[in-house]
Amino acid sequence: MPRYRVVIEYDGRPFVGWQRQNNGLGVQETIEQAAMMLNHDQPVLVYAAGRTDAGVHALGQVAHFDLIRDMEPTRLMSAMNAHLKHYPVSVVDTDIVSEDFHARFSAHERVYEYRIINRTAPLTFDRGLAWQVSEKLDVDAMDDAAKVLLGKHDFTTFRASYCQAKSALRTLDQFDVVRTEKLITVHVRARSFLHHQVRNMVGTLRLVGVGKWDKNDIIQALNAKDRCRGGPTAPADGLYLTGVGY
Amino acid sequence: MPRYRVVIEYDGRPFVGWQRQNNGLGVQETIEQAAMMLNHDQPVLVYAAGRTDAGVHALGQVAHFDLIRDMEPTRLMSAMNAHLKHYPVSVVDTDIVSEDFHARFSAHERVYEYRIINRTAPLTFDRGLAWQVSEKLDVDAMDDAAKVLLGKHDFTTFRASYCQAKSALRTLDQFDVVRTEKLITVHVRARSFLHHQVRNMVGTLRLVGVGKWDKNDIIQALNAKDRCRGGPTAPADGLYLTGVGY
Repeated sequence: MPRYRVVIEYDGRPFVGWQRQNNGLGVQETIEQAAMMLNHDQPVLVYAAGRTDAGVHALGQVAHFDLIRDMEPTRLMSAMNAHLKHYPVSVVDTDIVSEDFHARFSAHERVYEYRIINRTAPLTFDRGLAWQVSEKLDVDAMDDAAKVLLGKHDFTTFRASYCQAKSALRTLDQFDVVRTEKLITVHVRARSFLHHQVRNMVGTLRLVGVGKWDKNDIIQALNAKDRCRGGPTAPADGLYLTGVGY
Repeated sequence: MPRYRVVIEYDGRPFVGWQRQNNGLGVQETIEQAAMMLNHDQPVLVYAAGRTDAGVHALGQVAHFDLIRDMEPTRLMSAMNAHLKHYPVSVVDTDIVSEDFHARFSAHERVYEYRIINRTAPLTFDRGLAWQVSEKLDVDAMDDAAKVLLGKHDFTTFRASYCQAKSALRTLDQFDVVRTEKLITVHVRARSFLHHQVRNMVGTLRLVGVGKWDKNDIIQALNAKDRCRGGPTAPADGLYLTGVGY
């Protein structure tokens, strides 16, 4: 049973998230269906590095699965894409890995991007693909305040109240805010994240961007270890899983 | 009757093009409906700089119209966008202009961008928003060959056979091909273009990119002044009207 690693790109808009759910289609199902077609119709379990939420996108989700048959990686990629053609899901890279590789447990880094479009005009191409913020955002202040969260902290303030992780300790390795005209991109990188952590941090940074909060408010919110003291959750629309490090 | 100039962004996928047609919705209609709502329900005629074809997009289409009432430009913009909310169409800038301004006839430059995504994996986010080309494209060769078409020429080879312009003489001021990883952007600029000229030139450049044609084939095709000697028409998907100069 050879093990395959696939890199997947998807537009999260029509999906209930990565995972199978009862209330709609998960990206996982589309990949598992495509893999099953290449596995003599035997069910295939697909494991992903990041279980993205409903409406969250991926440019570089990584997953693995085992097939009964040997397939050359580029053939696997085109065969899977043929089966995925009715979904905005695409396998962009494939290789064969050893059987001790696990997309989730072998990963030592997750990289996300959050896209804000800072303009008053409603979005056209980017509806559901970015967070439109009308108020002028001070990106230098946001970038400066973001740095407060770098390093190892208890991120209770920034995790969903129903997050099931045992510990809220996480180490943030990158948190940068960059403007290119109307597009503001937040780059964030860590070994792993808590549930809604990126969206809660970005929603809080928006308060800094509009001048309601400053860097010290972020420090106090972090130290409070209380979700109620953090800013609102930014919408799923702007969040992209861009890569996974092994 | 004050005259207003509006800059419009639209996703061309659901439209039959800029102009009103019998076979579907034109972007023009959505703008005229929105303007009529601000004109005591009196019909408004909207004139655009470029009558983009079905499926062609705009980041900087420019149009003008007259209203019975005076409106402050930023109020006009938000009121129009409120009426446009069900369409992927957005007014991104507005101002008041003199009554001798005409969006089409006063324009002395049109700027287009054509986006190619050069990869084997099917598109996800960019379906209908770019031309996916699987064969590896030699962008340096394309850029070099594009330069042959700069300046004043008879572009009969690159215009739609049913193009109604009296003369096929046009002056091409810019034709650059730039790669940023998998995205290849073609930048093209002229006072005006013939029907399908950009798409026919891009479709021909693809032949250079895959090595079937070289620069001399482009020169010979141009000199033949015969549409049958040009390359195929690139799809509407990748074409964006990005700006208009006055």
